[in-house]
Amino acid sequence: MKRENKKTASLSRQEKLIKDFSLENTIGKILPPDEALAKKAQERLDSLTKPQGSLGRLEELAKQIASITGRLDPDLTKKLIIVMAADHGVVDEGVSVYPREVTPQMVYNFLRGGAAINVLARHIGADVVVVDAGVASNIDYRQQKAAKETPESSCSMFVDKKIGLGTGNMAKGAAMTKEQAISSIEAGIEVAAGMIENGYGIVGTGDMGIGNTTASSAIAACMCSASVEAVTGYGTGIDDAGYVKKVNAIKKAIRINKPDPNDAIDVLSKIGGFEIGAIAGVILGCAAKKTPVVIDGFISGAAALIAESISAACRQYMIASHCSVEKGHKIVLEKLKLAPLFDFDMRLGEGTGAAIGISVAHAAVKILNEMPTFDEASVSQKNI
Amino acid sequence: MKRENKKTASLSRQEKLIKDFSLENTIGKILPPDEALAKKAQERLDSLTKPQGSLGRLEELAKQIASITGRLDPDLTKKLIIVMAADHGVVDEGVSVYPREVTPQMVYNFLRGGAAINVLARHIGADVVVVDAGVASNIDYRQQKAAKETPESSCSMFVDKKIGLGTGNMAKGAAMTKEQAISSIEAGIEVAAGMIENGYGIVGTGDMGIGNTTASSAIAACMCSASVEAVTGYGTGIDDAGYVKKVNAIKKAIRINKPDPNDAIDVLSKIGGFEIGAIAGVILGCAAKKTPVVIDGFISGAAALIAESISAACRQYMIASHCSVEKGHKIVLEKLKLAPLFDFDMRLGEGTGAAIGISVAHAAVKILNEMPTFDEASVSQKNI
Repeated sequence: MKRENKKTASLSRQEKLIKDFSLENTIGKILPPDEALAKKAQERLDSLTKPQGSLGRLEELAKQIASITGRLDPDLTKKLIIVMAADHGVVDEGVSVYPREVTPQMVYNFLRGGAAINVLARHIGADVVVVDAGVASNIDYRQQKAAKETPESSCSMFVDKKIGLGTGNMAKGAAMTKEQAISSIEAGIEVAAGMIENGYGIVGTGDMGIGNTTASSAIAACMCSASVEAVTGYGTGIDDAGYVKKVNAIKKAIRINKPDPNDAIDVLSKIGGFEIGAIAGVILGCAAKKTPVVIDGFISGAAALIAESISAACRQYMIASHCSVEKGHKIVLEKLKLAPLFDFDMRLGEGTGAAIGISVAHAAVKILNEMPTFDEASVSQKNI
Repeated sequence: MKRENKKTASLSRQEKLIKDFSLENTIGKILPPDEALAKKAQERLDSLTKPQGSLGRLEELAKQIASITGRLDPDLTKKLIIVMAADHGVVDEGVSVYPREVTPQMVYNFLRGGAAINVLARHIGADVVVVDAGVASNIDYRQQKAAKETPESSCSMFVDKKIGLGTGNMAKGAAMTKEQAISSIEAGIEVAAGMIENGYGIVGTGDMGIGNTTASSAIAACMCSASVEAVTGYGTGIDDAGYVKKVNAIKKAIRINKPDPNDAIDVLSKIGGFEIGAIAGVILGCAAKKTPVVIDGFISGAAALIAESISAACRQYMIASHCSVEKGHKIVLEKLKLAPLFDFDMRLGEGTGAAIGISVAHAAVKILNEMPTFDEASVSQKNI
């Protein structure tokens, strides 16, 4: 009897946890950031030993992060990049120069610490968690670690949240069911919220998925009311013939699926991707947990469109890192009213732009936390 | 007799050192970077597990730094910000809202580790050296350290290279003599070269000097053939009446001194500043020592104009960090054909932009050094 009771209690706790990460519950927890804290942060910034406002965007970031976290001394010591990986049925249309098997190969590369995002995460002192949101093959995490473990891999974690073995080909039907779309978002919420509970103070989004610029362009065209050509770029490097195939596949996907731009779940399920839904979930999870989330490039931007459409308030929790070479990204950022921090002509994904953005955000917070005031430093103020 | 010999030997060694840091010798040592290394770096970058060119400016930076250092594996572990401080006689014309005493007060703030540049230098793992190139009062370094030493101050070093107690008022005559102009440049060369010999792999420029946007605008107007209004901004925050005074002071300085735009020493001596000459020296010293130098904002930009005019080849050793709010900076960067990495609406100086630029440069080099190739990582290449 006693044991049974325990089991029941344990189950109800688990049920509670599952309920906690549900999309509906998460949306209910997303409140606008605390404007009073932004004001207090501005007052402190204005008292520090520098001309007022002279650190520009760094001051804006510090204020935003104070208002997000509800703290005048936000702690961004523990930083995390979440790389969501999944495959796309639309690659059957010849939209990418890389074969589908590159997705799992890169997942193993992330886990060994060898990819660009691992290098940049180590550079900024961030951990990396790689999530299988729907890779089209089984990821044998333990085997791979045993075979090729390197000292650098210590910061990489793996989470299995596979929704399916890649999406369906959106040029021939819906990419996924609505239930899968919601599950992909909830997977992202669960990973982000769980990690934040483990002490991470800032999260960067990242993606891996051969074919995912195609899905992202489809989402951007649909949700930004833009032409397919205006939001479709050359991805990892297709030629002109490949570009035509890509544009045609997107047009066909939109024509046959008729996604409703005002229903983000509808858009995600018909022309999205599992990793895109999961990144949207990361954004929503961060907002619900009052944690700044640094948005990477075009794929993360498409996910941000989904997240913002689900909960408009989550936009204020976003920090746009860079503007990508992918031409749709600028249109996405404008739609989201986000000004990117920099433009380095990057188009890699993985969270590489977000990593640099996180470092800038942490610099901004350190200005707020570590600089003395004019009085404390015995420096004369302006002549009035 | 023996002691005398020793003294003679010692003197000749010192003479040799002095000769080493002379402007003439330094110019002779500045050679164009090694283009073959840039090519080799590109080949390596193209073999790493990412679509070719997908890291954009990071790849450009990695190539540039490989060609500068002559190494495929440049070592930027030890990073340095050199903050050159000096005063300006032109503040008598009412061109700044801050009183002159802020220059030494901020020098002490740097030495205690409390200024924005200290925060950002700690963030990126850089040391800070503060150089008195011509502050208008005596800097009592030891007394200050003893009185207010904090753990954070450990990375700040002080070097006394005072050329004079502030420049003369350029609106009434030359700011300094030609000998002083050359001495200020050689001071910068000596500090940079000495630090590089101590293992620093990358150097960022920084400045402190009440009134130095006025001198920098004068240099920019003269050397970029621009109108004074086009290159004069609001500095630390003057009002419109102060702006008129500032523009008039610059116009008067140019009119009465008649600096020759084709003679950088003439320009520096007539309308420059000790810290501006010293920063030009840092740039020249870095180029002579095959070391990348990250240029901060407007004041460092004016110094870069001086350095580039003295040795055109040193331009290729420069990395422009940010574009400042000071409106003359864009014109200076265009004249130097330098594309800044970012624009954060900053206008603080001290090397704050350079610090963030150094971190980006180090990230770029780590991509080159730490990422595996497609073969090493067992990742499939493009379909051809």
